[in-house]
Formats: sequence, structure tokens, C-alpha cells
Amino acid sequence: MKIVLAQINLHVGNIEENTTKIVFGIKQAQQFNADLIIFPELSICGYPPLDMLDYREFTMRCHAAVEKIARICTDIAAIIGSPSLNPAKDGKSLHNSAFFCAGGKIQSIHHKTLLPDYDVFDEYRYFEPNREFNVVEYKGTRIAITICEDLWTEQNFHNSFINKRLYTISPMDQLISQDPGIIVNISASPFAWQKVQTKKDVFIEAAKKHSLPVFMVNQVGANTDLIFEGGSLVVNPKGEIYDRISRFEEDFQIYDLDEVLTAPAHGADPAVSDRQKIIFNALVLGIRDFFVKNGFEQALIGLSGGIDSAVTAVLAAEALGHENVKCVFMPSEYTMEVSREGAGKLAETINVSLTETAIDSLFDSFKETLRPLFKDLSENTAEENIQARIRGTLLMAIANKFGYILLNTSNKSESAVGYSTLYGDTSGALAVLGDVYKTQVYELARYINRTEEIIPASIIDRAPSAELREGQEDADSLPEYDILDPILFRYIEEHKDAAVIAGEGFETGLVKKVISLVDTSEFKRYQSPPVLRISPKAFGHGRRMPLVAKY
Amino acid sequence: MKIVLAQINLHVGNIEENTTKIVFGIKQAQQFNADLIIFPELSICGYPPLDMLDYREFTMRCHAAVEKIARICTDIAAIIGSPSLNPAKDGKSLHNSAFFCAGGKIQSIHHKTLLPDYDVFDEYRYFEPNREFNVVEYKGTRIAITICEDLWTEQNFHNSFINKRLYTISPMDQLISQDPGIIVNISASPFAWQKVQTKKDVFIEAAKKHSLPVFMVNQVGANTDLIFEGGSLVVNPKGEIYDRISRFEEDFQIYDLDEVLTAPAHGADPAVSDRQKIIFNALVLGIRDFFVKNGFEQALIGLSGGIDSAVTAVLAAEALGHENVKCVFMPSEYTMEVSREGAGKLAETINVSLTETAIDSLFDSFKETLRPLFKDLSENTAEENIQARIRGTLLMAIANKFGYILLNTSNKSESAVGYSTLYGDTSGALAVLGDVYKTQVYELARYINRTEEIIPASIIDRAPSAELREGQEDADSLPEYDILDPILFRYIEEHKDAAVIAGEGFETGLVKKVISLVDTSEFKRYQSPPVLRISPKAFGHGRRMPLVAKY
Repeated sequence: MKIVLAQINLHVGNIEENTTKIVFGIKQAQQFNADLIIFPELSICGYPPLDMLDYREFTMRCHAAVEKIARICTDIAAIIGSPSLNPAKDGKSLHNSAFFCAGGKIQSIHHKTLLPDYDVFDEYRYFEPNREFNVVEYKGTRIAITICEDLWTEQNFHNSFINKRLYTISPMDQLISQDPGIIVNISASPFAWQKVQTKKDVFIEAAKKHSLPVFMVNQVGANTDLIFEGGSLVVNPKGEIYDRISRFEEDFQIYDLDEVLTAPAHGADPAVSDRQKIIFNALVLGIRDFFVKNGFEQALIGLSGGIDSAVTAVLAAEALGHENVKCVFMPSEYTMEVSREGAGKLAETINVSLTETAIDSLFDSFKETLRPLFKDLSENTAEENIQARIRGTLLMAIANKFGYILLNTSNKSESAVGYSTLYGDTSGALAVLGDVYKTQVYELARYINRTEEIIPASIIDRAPSAELREGQEDADSLPEYDILDPILFRYIEEHKDAAVIAGEGFETGLVKKVISLVDTSEFKRYQSPPVLRISPKAFGHGRRMPLVAKY
Repeated sequence: MKIVLAQINLHVGNIEENTTKIVFGIKQAQQFNADLIIFPELSICGYPPLDMLDYREFTMRCHAAVEKIARICTDIAAIIGSPSLNPAKDGKSLHNSAFFCAGGKIQSIHHKTLLPDYDVFDEYRYFEPNREFNVVEYKGTRIAITICEDLWTEQNFHNSFINKRLYTISPMDQLISQDPGIIVNISASPFAWQKVQTKKDVFIEAAKKHSLPVFMVNQVGANTDLIFEGGSLVVNPKGEIYDRISRFEEDFQIYDLDEVLTAPAHGADPAVSDRQKIIFNALVLGIRDFFVKNGFEQALIGLSGGIDSAVTAVLAAEALGHENVKCVFMPSEYTMEVSREGAGKLAETINVSLTETAIDSLFDSFKETLRPLFKDLSENTAEENIQARIRGTLLMAIANKFGYILLNTSNKSESAVGYSTLYGDTSGALAVLGDVYKTQVYELARYINRTEEIIPASIIDRAPSAELREGQEDADSLPEYDILDPILFRYIEEHKDAAVIAGEGFETGLVKKVISLVDTSEFKRYQSPPVLRISPKAFGHGRRMPLVAKY
């Protein structure tokens, strides 16, 4: 039996285009005389469709598309992910299903049993879990079809504060009694740099436990905040990785089942040695798909001469082409010469356009307009914020006028502690570095400069500053980032409380101050742009904190 | 048996203050020689705690608080809502529980079975559903304890597109075999004006079906976007409403079980005759709790001379006191005299401070600053947006300088179709009218004016306009609101697609245009303030649409 993994990039809601891709894949597979082709979870509508699933018509259109595709599956079988209507009298309206198509029609529908409902996942919102388990036989091979989390039964990964497994049942324990010969898993599993290894372990463990080969196809491509890395896998019955296909791009690979069962594995897929490289590639894909899928072309970035906007510009130029990146430098009286030089040098190196627009006269106009109200009150955060909002307004005006899309340059550390001006530097359509801690931004910059100095050393070496008052530095208001970031990581990613974090060697008063900053700046993040997610806990949909609360 | 319903206003996360309220309630009940006092769902931590539940320490503190409270329950029993740790080997970490306290300790813990996971509810994200059913006996009365949705088994309310019940099991069908004498339901059920009657029906049906009295206590008060109306109920075994206590305020009522069982009902609770009145009261509570619970005092509102800001100002003055409402009128060359007059007259009538700050010179400064970039390009939306963002920046500067909290004045209709400027008129800490359609805003204005002209007739009678260019009216860009709003309602609240809406008598092209506006302005709502929810489908957490999607 010849099996194809079709790792494709799907566009949420774009049933027509997704169908075209699936049909193209099937036709290619037919040319290779493949017996079975496997597409990712919810491939017909892209993942995640979110509340589009609340529209009955949406699922009906998905179903009709699968029926149409099934008609060409005459000499080949295809496994296609799609929502399906729950035919039962009671329960949720839908299932998250895998359609097994062969002989020119839909042969059977297999539903997802384990529905993730944590972090960015809300599948129980839409789907009734599966309760019936049926192995499919095709050309003499018995196939156990599972959907993503269905194989994640041994993990306690989202239950980090208690050592227990999240799920009380295991679909494979049910299916195994029907004597399958292979395990298929269709996935839409988003990227998080810490999870790249864990994900492989899941499938290795499943193969070993049941002594069966696993064919796993993951979605690739980004949909708003979620980046799907692909990295689809074939694991042999000994639990060795037979093949791991590309990350961050579409791929199409064909396998001979006999070979997978008998030949020695090609060699283990090495652990990721260069974390910065995969984060860089993930963010580039995240930007590119945001633009391509939305029909956008040109990005606008406010270059400050600091490291965040510099890294954002490099990523954008990589994703969109340098000719599609427009930068604006907006100095004030507080802007240092090193900022202008750094911004100019970077723009030259990466060959993006750079305009300079000073904000001084606007800042004066605001102060003048507000003088009757503010009278002799001394300048404070209010005036700092005015500068950030002038820059936001200028950037949005330029974006509106020329049809550019403003990229936000905030990093995760400043977003965490609220070191930002709402409607000012929090503006933008997409927060490129919103899930990248400041210390990681530096690591990314060094990765970018690994062979030549693309980001000027002056930008990397200078002390971080918002430049909203004379001589201001981040360190005036915040702990040094190499202390701040580990505290933030423990609080946000690891859900540790103040006492535990202090117990790990941080000063109690500082830990409490940092946690308090995170909690009380929730209102800023509520109104911030979507964040490209590269960790298991990014700000946005995946972290839901009350705004009116005492912590 | 004497039973107390303690309808209290809880502050999310404020375990200490909530505990004090609960202890106070128990002591009062003891003075009345009550036998049982009932508090709302998750009363110890307030509803909804959201991802605070991801911190193990949070649940431990809740549990410790309940243990402490239980010690004073010597001659009285108390039912208190709290999260509890799931002791099972596998599964979610927590249960959503009702603690039955008596004899100075926790006697038993009863978990919620039916976990809502739709709209604003994400309970399956945190909680393992209950699978064991136990009636409690106290002083000869057998009590079936249910938690909110546990009694909502006959409804298909969130499954509007398919006529089926959401849940496949019914906790009361399990409990009834243990021969209970009363049903207790502890709730945290947020307000939606269409649901006020439905909610009563749920408890009436449960009482009738099982021929048992129902004692239901609902949380009161607002937490961020969600407003809880209270309206706790006692229903007799015939399914007649014995008593319905206050809406929108704390209440404490004592009942004699024998009387509930034998005496004729006080008379049915009449259907709500004045929809505007309950919406008005809900919004006032929503504003007040947002301020009180956050420790805020003074609100800032940009008064435009239009109806949205006028109604917002009246609501704020009612909620916070007129002395705590600060208004700013920010005219431009496009502002009509009727706007200035209307704003001035309103401020005088409701006795709030009003400052005028013209934006012309700032608008000129922006155009001047951008001239080298924009050159001879004609003015368009970019310049309209600059005006809105100047106003947003001025308002935020004033708010920052004086510690005011900016209230957002957008209505649901304009938010739906994206008739707004991101970072301009979408600014604010709380969108007071964000779930109120424009036609409903007019109804609210007429309600406010029911006895005297508080909102000037000139504001109500004029054609709506954003006043961002000469002679602009909403009707230039949008259909009339009495056509727009019914289309929006069908699409957003009722999840009907274009064909179905057109089939109900709306012009197909118009319906498609409106739906397209809603879909493509998702990015603006993503970055908008939290919206006070008064309907079953408000923008915000309860409606999750992808940004990168084809519709």
C-alpha cells in the first residue's frame, strides 16, 4: 500500500480554495498510483474556524465539498477533515470528523473523541465527542483513524499544576481491539517552540505502545495568531521516526507501507539544535500568511532605532520582500542620534524605504490645545503617552492613505508588564513579537546577524529606551530583562504563584511587583492586536483573565 | 425549615471580601433562626474567574476560605459555591462545586454536571463534569443540589440552528431517585434582555416536572462585561412562582418551606413590560460595578452632540453621580451648531461638567506634518480617521492627567459594520452601549425622557452623523438603522445566513453588503474595549471569529 501525506496550507473559511488544493493533491497521488492520501484535520475549512461553525450553512457547505471530492476518489482512498452534523437527537450540533472517501463516495465518518478545551482551543464549544470506534479496511489494510488530540492521552501537558492526565479515556485503547494495521492521525497542531520535541514523542509512544506504524499529517501555514508548522511524521512500529517532512512549508510525500514496516528507519529526526532558526521561520510564515490570505501586500513599520522594530522589519522583509516594507522614523526632542543612525543603517542594509517625520510640532500643538485644561500641572505619563499616540496616529494615517498594513512591534515582556501606551505603540494589525520575550528578541537579533551585521551592533548594544522623556531607559521602570523575563515565564507559562517563584531564587518584593504589573495591565492587552503565537501560552485568546478582579 | 436566599454581589478573585459577605449573610440568617442559607455559584471567588483557575494556589485559597466559613455553620447549614480540586487520578484539575456546610464543617461537595461551553462560557476549559449524584439530608429535608445549567436540560437555546437539546443527560433525573424534598439551584447566570422570561421557565418546568419546590439563587452585580441581574426565585411544586426577589441589587430573603409547599403562590411574577427599564438598570449596574470594583471614581466622556454619547452620559451620571462625570466637547470645522447646543444643554440638564476643546489646529498640524508624504492626494478616509484619533488622544490625555476613566460610546450597529475609527472613537475602558443597537439607543433615549426632556429633543430628532466631513450623514454610508438593525440581529444573534435573511423580506444585495461589512470589520472589534453584555450574543469573548478568513 502506497500512502501519501498531503501537508497543505489551508485558508480558514475558504472552502473553495481548500477544495481545489485537496483535489489537486488527490490527482497528484493518483498519478503516483498511491492507494491512500491523508489531509489534515478540518482541512476542508481550515483550522480554526471558530464561530463560523455557529452557522449551519457553513457546515453544510463543508459537507457538500467533501461529497464532491469523494466522487473523484475512485481508484484511491482519501481521508479528509471536516465538520459534520451530529445526527443524534441531543447534544452539540457538530462533530469534528475525518471523512473516509473511496469508491467514488464517502464510505464512513470518524469523529474526534478528545476535544481540546484549554489555551487557544475551544473545541468543546462546537463539537460533541465521539463515542463509537470503528476501524476501516481498505485494500486489505485495517486503518485506525484518529484526529489530533485523540493520540495525546499520555500527556499532562496542559495540566501542569497537577500531575494527572487530562483525559480519562483513550481512543486507541478502543480501536486496538479491532486489530488495525496502521494508525492515521490528522492534525492541526499549532507551533510552540517548546513543543516541537513533545509532539514527536506523542506519536513515537503511540507507535511503540501498539506496535503499529503512525502516519500523522499536520496542517501547515498561519491563520491569524496561530502558526502551524507542518512537520508531518511517519513512525515505524518500533517507535522510530521513519520520516519527518518539512516544517513551515507545504509538502507532499509518498510512502510504501511495506517499507515503513520492514526497512530500518532513516535515522532519528534530530532534536532542534537552533531554537532561533525555527522561531524566525515561524514568525516569517506568520507574517506572510497574514498578508497573503488577507490579500494585503505592503507593511508599514515605525522604526524607532530600537531592537524590537529592527527585528520586526527584518522579519517583514523576509516574509514580504524588501520592496513591500515601508518604514517611518518619527523622532522627537528626546530621540537620540544613535536611534536615527541605527534606523537609517538598518533600512539601508535590508533595502526598505524609510521616511522621517518628526513629531515635535504635533507634540507642541497637543500641549498648546490642552494648556487651558492642564494649566501648570507638571508633565508626566500623560505627556509621554501623547507622544506615543501621535506616532500611532501618524502611522495609521499613512497606512490608511496608501493601503499599508501597520505591524505592531511590541515584545512579550513589555506587553506583560504594560510598559506601553494603549492606542500608541500597541497599535497595529498584527503583533509580530508579541509572544517573544525581550531577551529572546536579542537572541533573534543575534541569529539574524549570524553571518553578517544586518541589524547594526549599535541597536543591539544600546540600553533599551522608550525615548519619551530626557534620558529615559527601560531600566528606570523595570527590572533588567534577564531577571524580569524568567519571572514572567514562571508566572505566565508555568502558572506559578509568587511564593513558588520567590522560592526559586527571586527577590520576593520584586516578584510581587512584577506579578502585580502583569495583572493590572490586563486592560491594555484586551485591546491589543492579535499576537503571533510561538509558545504554549501567548497573550490573546489563549489567556483569558478578568479585567475587573482583585488578584 | 427556614431557608434564606442570599443574593450577593461578588468581586472576581476577591476571596477575602467575598468571604466577609458570606460570613455576614450567615450571621444574619442565624439571627433569624434560619436552617439553611444558599449562596450563588462560585460565590467564594465570584463568577467568572476565568484563567485565574489555572493557578493552583487560587483554588487552594478558595477551599481554605470555605473551610473557615464552615466552622461558623454550627446551628445552620450553608450551600456555598467554590471551585474544588478534582481528586480523581485523571481528568481536568477542577470541579465547579457546591459545598454543603453544617455542624461546623464541610459535610459534602457536589459538582456541576452540565458545563456550559458556548457564547461567553468556557467551563469545560477548567472543570471536569460530575458523574456522582447524591441528595443531602438536613433536619429531615432531603435536598437535591444543582448548579446553574444543571437544570437547563430542556432548552435548546444555544443550539438555535438545530432543534435539539444541548445536553444528553439530566442531573435531576439521577437525583430524583433519591427522593429529594426540595431542589436547590445556585447560579451565576448573566443578564440578557431576551432571556429574562426563559430563565423563569427553566425553574418553573423543573418544579412542575418533579413536583418539588425550587430555590434558586443567582449572583447579582457586574464583572467586566457580564451583568448578573439576580432575580432569584422560589417556585412551588405546582410550578407557580412563589417569590422573585430584586433585580440588579443585593437581596436577602427568608422563606418557610412549609408555606412554600402549602400556601397559595403570591401571584405570578409578571412578564417584563418595560424592556427599556431593565436594560437601563442593567447598564447602570454594569458601569457602577466596573468603577467600584476597580477602585475608579470619575468617568470621562466625549460628548459629540449625538445620541450615543448623550445616552452614555445619562447612564454614567446615574451610575456614578453627576459630580463624577466629566464631559469634553471637541468640535471641528465640520461640527454643526446643533451639536454644540445639544451637548451643552444635556450637560446642563444632568449637571455634569463640560469642557470644550476644538481640534482644528491639531487637525491642521497633522495635515501639515503629513504634507510631504501625502502631497496632493485628495482628502479621504485617512483624514476622517485623523480627526477621530485626535479626539481619542485628547480624551486619553485628559483621562491620564486627571485619573479619569474614559467611557466608550459606540453602539452595536456601528461596531457591527465597522463604522468607526480604530484607536479613535473605539477608545475607552468600557463600551457602555456596545451591545445596544442604534434603534435600541433611541428607545433608551425615549425611556430616559419618559417624564421630562433630559436628552434634548434636537439630539434625538437629528439625522445621525459622524461629522468627519462637510454635511456627512450615517445614511450616506449605511442603510437606515431600522433596516440595518433587523438584518444585523438575524445575522449576529440568530446565526442566519444571507439566503435565509433575504427570504425574510430583505433585499439580497443589501443583506450581502451588510454581512460583508460585519465580517471584514472583525479586526476593529478584536481591539475594542469590553462591551457591557445585554443580549445573548454580544461582541467580545462570546463571539469568536477568525481575522484571517474568507467568508
